Amino acid sequence: MHRDLLRRGRLSDDRTGEVMHFLSSMTADHWIAEMDIQVDMAHLLMLREKEIIGEDAARALMGALLSFHEDGVPEEAYDECFEDIHAGKEAALIARVGEEFGGRLHMGRSRNDEVATCIRMRLREELLGCMAAVCDLRRVLLDLAAAHRETIMPGFTHLQHAQPTTLAHHLLAYEAAFGRDFGRLADAYGRVNECPLGAAAFASTGYPIDRAMTAGLLGFERPMGNSMDAVATRDFALESLSACTVMMTNASRLCEEMVVWSSAFVRFVQLADGYSSTSSIMPQKKNPDTAEIMRAKAGTVAGALAGATTITKGLPMSYNRDLQELTPHLWRGVAAARESLVVLAGMLSTATFDTDRMAAESDRGFSTATELADVLVREYGLPFRTAHSVVGRAVKQGALDLATLEAAAEEVAGLSLTERGLTAERVAAALDPAISVAERNAIGGPAPDETARAVAARNTDLAADEAATAGLAKAIETALARLVDEARRLAEA
Amino acid sequence: MHRDLLRRGRLSDDRTGEVMHFLSSMTADHWIAEMDIQVDMAHLLMLREKEIIGEDAARALMGALLSFHEDGVPEEAYDECFEDIHAGKEAALIARVGEEFGGRLHMGRSRNDEVATCIRMRLREELLGCMAAVCDLRRVLLDLAAAHRETIMPGFTHLQHAQPTTLAHHLLAYEAAFGRDFGRLADAYGRVNECPLGAAAFASTGYPIDRAMTAGLLGFERPMGNSMDAVATRDFALESLSACTVMMTNASRLCEEMVVWSSAFVRFVQLADGYSSTSSIMPQKKNPDTAEIMRAKAGTVAGALAGATTITKGLPMSYNRDLQELTPHLWRGVAAARESLVVLAGMLSTATFDTDRMAAESDRGFSTATELADVLVREYGLPFRTAHSVVGRAVKQGALDLATLEAAAEEVAGLSLTERGLTAERVAAALDPAISVAERNAIGGPAPDETARAVAARNTDLAADEAATAGLAKAIETALARLVDEARRLAEA
Amino acid sequence: MHRDLLRRGRLSDDRTGEVMHFLSSMTADHWIAEMDIQVDMAHLLMLREKEIIGEDAARALMGALLSFHEDGVPEEAYDECFEDIHAGKEAALIARVGEEFGGRLHMGRSRNDEVATCIRMRLREELLGCMAAVCDLRRVLLDLAAAHRETIMPGFTHLQHAQPTTLAHHLLAYEAAFGRDFGRLADAYGRVNECPLGAAAFASTGYPIDRAMTAGLLGFERPMGNSMDAVATRDFALESLSACTVMMTNASRLCEEMVVWSSAFVRFVQLADGYSSTSSIMPQKKNPDTAEIMRAKAGTVAGALAGATTITKGLPMSYNRDLQELTPHLWRGVAAARESLVVLAGMLSTATFDTDRMAAESDRGFSTATELADVLVREYGLPFRTAHSVVGRAVKQGALDLATLEAAAEEVAGLSLTERGLTAERVAAALDPAISVAERNAIGGPAPDETARAVAARNTDLAADEAATAGLAKAIETALARLVDEARRLAEA
Amino acid sequence: MHRDLLRRGRLSDDRTGEVMHFLSSMTADHWIAEMDIQVDMAHLLMLREKEIIGEDAARALMGALLSFHEDGVPEEAYDECFEDIHAGKEAALIARVGEEFGGRLHMGRSRNDEVATCIRMRLREELLGCMAAVCDLRRVLLDLAAAHRETIMPGFTHLQHAQPTTLAHHLLAYEAAFGRDFGRLADAYGRVNECPLGAAAFASTGYPIDRAMTAGLLGFERPMGNSMDAVATRDFALESLSACTVMMTNASRLCEEMVVWSSAFVRFVQLADGYSSTSSIMPQKKNPDTAEIMRAKAGTVAGALAGATTITKGLPMSYNRDLQELTPHLWRGVAAARESLVVLAGMLSTATFDTDRMAAESDRGFSTATELADVLVREYGLPFRTAHSVVGRAVKQGALDLATLEAAAEEVAGLSLTERGLTAERVAAALDPAISVAERNAIGGPAPDETARAVAARNTDLAADEAATAGLAKAIETALARLVDEARRLAEA
Repeated sequence: MHRDLLRRGRLSDDRTGEVMHFLSSMTADHWIAEMDIQVDMAHLLMLREKEIIGEDAARALMGALLSFHEDGVPEEAYDECFEDIHAGKEAALIARVGEEFGGRLHMGRSRNDEVATCIRMRLREELLGCMAAVCDLRRVLLDLAAAHRETIMPGFTHLQHAQPTTLAHHLLAYEAAFGRDFGRLADAYGRVNECPLGAAAFASTGYPIDRAMTAGLLGFERPMGNSMDAVATRDFALESLSACTVMMTNASRLCEEMVVWSSAFVRFVQLADGYSSTSSIMPQKKNPDTAEIMRAKAGTVAGALAGATTITKGLPMSYNRDLQELTPHLWRGVAAARESLVVLAGMLSTATFDTDRMAAESDRGFSTATELADVLVREYGLPFRTAHSVVGRAVKQGALDLATLEAAAEEVAGLSLTERGLTAERVAAALDPAISVAERNAIGGPAPDETARAVAARNTDLAADEAATAGLAKAIETALARLVDEARRLAEA
Repeated sequence: MHRDLLRRGRLSDDRTGEVMHFLSSMTADHWIAEMDIQVDMAHLLMLREKEIIGEDAARALMGALLSFHEDGVPEEAYDECFEDIHAGKEAALIARVGEEFGGRLHMGRSRNDEVATCIRMRLREELLGCMAAVCDLRRVLLDLAAAHRETIMPGFTHLQHAQPTTLAHHLLAYEAAFGRDFGRLADAYGRVNECPLGAAAFASTGYPIDRAMTAGLLGFERPMGNSMDAVATRDFALESLSACTVMMTNASRLCEEMVVWSSAFVRFVQLADGYSSTSSIMPQKKNPDTAEIMRAKAGTVAGALAGATTITKGLPMSYNRDLQELTPHLWRGVAAARESLVVLAGMLSTATFDTDRMAAESDRGFSTATELADVLVREYGLPFRTAHSVVGRAVKQGALDLATLEAAAEEVAGLSLTERGLTAERVAAALDPAISVAERNAIGGPAPDETARAVAARNTDLAADEAATAGLAKAIETALARLVDEARRLAEA
Repeated sequence: MHRDLLRRGRLSDDRTGEVMHFLSSMTADHWIAEMDIQVDMAHLLMLREKEIIGEDAARALMGALLSFHEDGVPEEAYDECFEDIHAGKEAALIARVGEEFGGRLHMGRSRNDEVATCIRMRLREELLGCMAAVCDLRRVLLDLAAAHRETIMPGFTHLQHAQPTTLAHHLLAYEAAFGRDFGRLADAYGRVNECPLGAAAFASTGYPIDRAMTAGLLGFERPMGNSMDAVATRDFALESLSACTVMMTNASRLCEEMVVWSSAFVRFVQLADGYSSTSSIMPQKKNPDTAEIMRAKAGTVAGALAGATTITKGLPMSYNRDLQELTPHLWRGVAAARESLVVLAGMLSTATFDTDRMAAESDRGFSTATELADVLVREYGLPFRTAHSVVGRAVKQGALDLATLEAAAEEVAGLSLTERGLTAERVAAALDPAISVAERNAIGGPAPDETARAVAARNTDLAADEAATAGLAKAIETALARLVDEARRLAEA
Repeated sequence: MHRDLLRRGRLSDDRTGEVMHFLSSMTADHWIAEMDIQVDMAHLLMLREKEIIGEDAARALMGALLSFHEDGVPEEAYDECFEDIHAGKEAALIARVGEEFGGRLHMGRSRNDEVATCIRMRLREELLGCMAAVCDLRRVLLDLAAAHRETIMPGFTHLQHAQPTTLAHHLLAYEAAFGRDFGRLADAYGRVNECPLGAAAFASTGYPIDRAMTAGLLGFERPMGNSMDAVATRDFALESLSACTVMMTNASRLCEEMVVWSSAFVRFVQLADGYSSTSSIMPQKKNPDTAEIMRAKAGTVAGALAGATTITKGLPMSYNRDLQELTPHLWRGVAAARESLVVLAGMLSTATFDTDRMAAESDRGFSTATELADVLVREYGLPFRTAHSVVGRAVKQGALDLATLEAAAEEVAGLSLTERGLTAERVAAALDPAISVAERNAIGGPAPDETARAVAARNTDLAADEAATAGLAKAIETALARLVDEARRLAEA
């Protein structure tokens, strides 16, 4: 039977298993166990550098830490009799090297800064994973857009056929949104990658520690600037969950479209079998389950944010145990977002788009009527609002042929279109979707020339985002490799 | 390597592990595996009763189901290559009794009604657990209230000492709130305990099934009245999470008070060691961690509700896979509420209340000033608002002695209190907390006589709620025992 | 310039307009101004009955209150220099009858119980409005269902054509859900309609008040049982918002369907012009805007609940000013739900359903394939799972004719269907939607006989709910009419 | 009676007042009416520059727009018979200049891009207001910190006295958090300040418009890169609400402390009268109402975010009317955040801190015990964990004098402290709060030297943030002034 050392002095230990479970963060602590060893190694290197700890103790401790690093934290450290992995690991360390040495690792720090450091380390890794995943997704969208610049399809407002556009234009709308999501994740990353270590309980410590050194060893940009803030804030978690929530609302919109487009009514897309499922009773069904689950994941991430926000509200300074309950929401939220983005890229890149169906629907429902109204304005001098009313009235009559238009113009505005020179040929040309699309070549429009320009420009932006993500990942990898090297040097000194 | 039978006909099986994991509900399905076997047994008894299935097939299947019931669903049924436990279990059944028999269990139903039935069965169990826990908590509160009817303490508004009250009165406020929580849970229970089985995919089935029979075997109140609603709705889950969320806001308020009352400033209460923790660096600390974590659990449950609500919004009829993503929020929410209530009862019943500290604080901060103002009205004829202003002005001067009051009356209202007969003795008597409390004997007030009456009345209500909960639990237990009996009879026929 | 009397004694009054606005609840107090006068009248009648107030003061005050009741609270009472309408109204009363009388109304109560009483009075009115609106909506759904028992349409899962059903069956699914919503509102009503008046600040009062009398005069079921709970709890607000949120998720699902069904792809429904809008630039559009806005209202109500929950979390006893900020969320949420339900009933009753389109889609996408698989089981002895795989494979081949089925059976299970007697005629009959639907006559199924039974049963339930709602409304109306009568009697005494 | 021109062609107009109200966004449109005129002016200048509109029409329209700009949009434009202010304003324009000219303004755009542009213009103003307010608040915090570097106070974890710190250190923790909030707002601003104008309904337009020109005239950084994204996305609103929500959780924590610190138990702070209120019945109360309401505002903003997120989830491309329902949540959320920050700065700068009370509490509850344990480690060679246990045991005995420590060391670790040289004098010195604080001079610690450095560094950062905010505001002001100049030039040409 393990015992929690922390409780030895002050508290009698009569907790029931129920209460132990209620108080323990062990389930969530698997997320940070690896980071906890890295934090120990960095802290120990600094303690030794500043001669706060003796050579023998340091060497023994580092040996044990390296074995944990290589073989994992011993299983007994996860027992729920410990409040958390930090207490469990300390017990395991003491079991390995004795209390005379083992207890010394905690000099100049506290669990409050230790756990905050671990969370930030794991979170930056998750954020980098999200950033890479969103880049991969944008790559898929840009490649599809490049291939579908001439794929005419109906565009929708209110789920009504509105005006013709292209599949490229539609996909580029999502790429633009995910591009902003990348920006939000990157901005959050900058506020996450600061080091709380050395803040101790909240008031820092009287030991002559070197916070810049540990921050550097662990790959952080800098130590946090206030030690109370360092242990008390979880705004970085709320911000990361917010960025993931916004991103997932974007993903949920795309998924809604995949569900609608997969329906027998629409048939614009067919998901690959690997992303679909069938019914246990209706053998003909091929359901877009991946898109449905992902649409729901937007709720999962939003719920994690709502939970974490409610937990944070109204907590006084500095550390409160409430914060322990916040962390699982963080992991659940960012993991759901990350895996969703990965799966979404795969779902889209393996989907089959039915371009014939799209073309067939592109002029349905009078969806080039706007262009016709514009022609009446540009070439026949009608006020815009009048032209709109005339065409609208003709639509209500059920046809956009010359006779109906003429009658509508008479009724709405008391004027004759044929007298102004309108012909049946001009009407027909105005209603052609491909012509309508090609003319819409303002910045951001669906004209193939403009989407070509947009794809090129966005590819440049994406390449820069990919490089930035890789650079951040490389910096951490390098720092952590150096950390282990220095740890080995000390252990073998 | 397991294979999902459902996919055999319609879909090629090229899913990556990532996608399999994304689509599978296995992690959450541990919550309902036991129920799934009960549902199978009831369905099979009905199929046999209605002669939809032959005797040999029924006997073989029931034998396998009983072995799963006794030994648990085989481990391989939980492989994530299956979308869910229902598919995994069916594969295990077929492995046990062959496809000729094994496939027949799914006649006249679908996974859509199967999973909805399982969720309702587990949820009603969780709700009963919550109802029992909230009764236990109310019992603790009533017992404490009975013991502390004369324990004078300050009452607070805005966290300011306001007027004296008693600990009994304070605790009875919470008992009243938790009593309403019981009502909300019981109301939700009534809407949960209806049986979807036989709704099949959503359109019921052409087999001559008997839905009343399966509903009865499984201990449900009645079959659900519309088969599309039966598989599509999750409003019962949202309602259950709502009831838990409201209950947890009540719990969070009590926990906030335990935290504040544990502080060195207040010292009204000390939690038992088993519900506290210490610091890894500050050995003197005894922290009310249980109360803090429970305060945070209110956020966890609220987040589960928010997530589930967002998932449900805007889904068309009937079943959509999004609903699979909702279920883990349900389990996380109700489990957090249930365990919190259990722990809260233990925390309160083992806490030590410092009644001396409470008494010492009961007349601090002019908290009997209201009574004094009332006396000026009742006995000396001042208008209420004038009396309030006079006493307020005296408080601002820092004293409630006769001289200060006299000066304040002159300044505020140009009148003399001494001329009206006020004496220093009368002022002192009016400021005595015990006298003030004893006079407040209207319905619901803090006077010891009134709280005695309230405790008695509430004990009666609580006994009725406890009996109702036990009755509901007994009804299910009886039904399920009979189910197993009949299953054995069939298997051994 | 008005001045807040409450601040006269204790506080200097140097607030900026910004801070006044921040602290004032005036904007939201319009919701409760009328109730506040009723509360005053009931309290005053009781004060007089218990001889706490003299006859002259009572008569003067009641005269002023009756004039406010008839002509509205004077405009100056809403000035933001007052914290709330209660303070503003008291100032107006004193201006009318002088401080000697005017200040006496506040004897034996506080703003804390006063505002809680007003909120419950307005809320019960809003809940009754919601209950009546949901009954009206159910009436529309039942009438439509009665008219469309034979209207065959495709049923959907995953937005895929799944199996044929009827429009009646589809609408009855929603009626069932809204029936539960009625139940939730009614349950909430029972917990709302209790009277906090007389709780005063939280500790009741030393005046010999009669709480049962005021509760009765105001039409409440009973006085609340604990005076601290009476002013501190807002769980009734959270519960009411929860009930509205769940109801709005149901409404949002129906609205999602109206949007999808209105699309040019589906054309199952056309909303009346009054519930649609057009585009400012695309004259041919007829957009289902009412359904879209209502779908979004689900978010509005859920947001109100989330806000109110977050505000409540972690507040200590008893009254805290945070509760003032909660109230606007309550009004916004219940009002959005109430107006949505009213508009939804109108939208549905005026919509045009295209039953030809529904029929045309009812056998699309192999949606009677399940029935065919069932026939293979029932009449040709295949195991269910095998039949499912065979039909699924045939679907994958693109046809459900005899030859394809035969080949599929060979491939999947190595058996011959023709050898078992299957004919092309039998296959064709099995795929007929009307036959498929008529056979699904289990409880809750779509068969016209069963929906006829369901409509009748639900009409009975609805009539009971309507009667209950009317009874509750009548009880309040009667109580309040008697209140005014007694008030007049006192004023004219 | 006004009529909505948009409905003239396509739709009959038989809407009830109820439905009109339901569909209309008029209430919220007051937020953007001013921006709408600016958008019109920029669009008109561009139409004229590109010769899409004739000189006479342009001059007449601009004249009317300038009169709206100067005198406000005419009141009749706000009638709820119009769906929104855009329709109402167009009717007013046509009434002013006739349909022949008035209808032409809508060429090359749609309400979809028009409203998105207006929202972004108003939102950037609100965000700049928030950024300025958070800078002012940080200035107050830094000034207070500079003044209180030597103000010793207890620091808390779990609301328990933990270790001594300084008021400066405590306030700097909040300043750090609000500094990150500034960063989040500024990052959001960058993604808000892009121009959707010219996206038209979503597919841009066939008119030869110049989107860069209008973007520049309206002070935007650039036109948005995809026209479908431009009208469909509201991620910028969700991001802005997220930034405000996180900021308000920080504010709520500070407010919670102000409430606790104001209590009679603590008395660390007294809010100025203007930020407090009193009770209607308890004249002695001075309640920290401003802090309570602001604490609750965190819920209001979080609720706005939750509502907006739920609304956005699962909407397909491109514009859907649901988005109209989102906007009021945006305004409510950012306005609540902005006004809270302004009031918070005032509340803090006028509060009175009781530094004597803080000092008196700074060594209470053994809060320098950590330092003592550290001394046992540093100077007397105990392992850290052992020292922690020894001091913890002594605390449990109730004293930190030499004898108790000696006994504890014997009991816990079987060693003698006096033998190692510990004296009563050394113990007393270790327990002195001022010494303890002064030694904690690592980066971010409470030592006065370190907080002096921190204040200086943060002042530099703040000055940069203030300059950046002012620069952004100036850029918009300059652009809009130039817009009006050019509009006048056109009108008077």
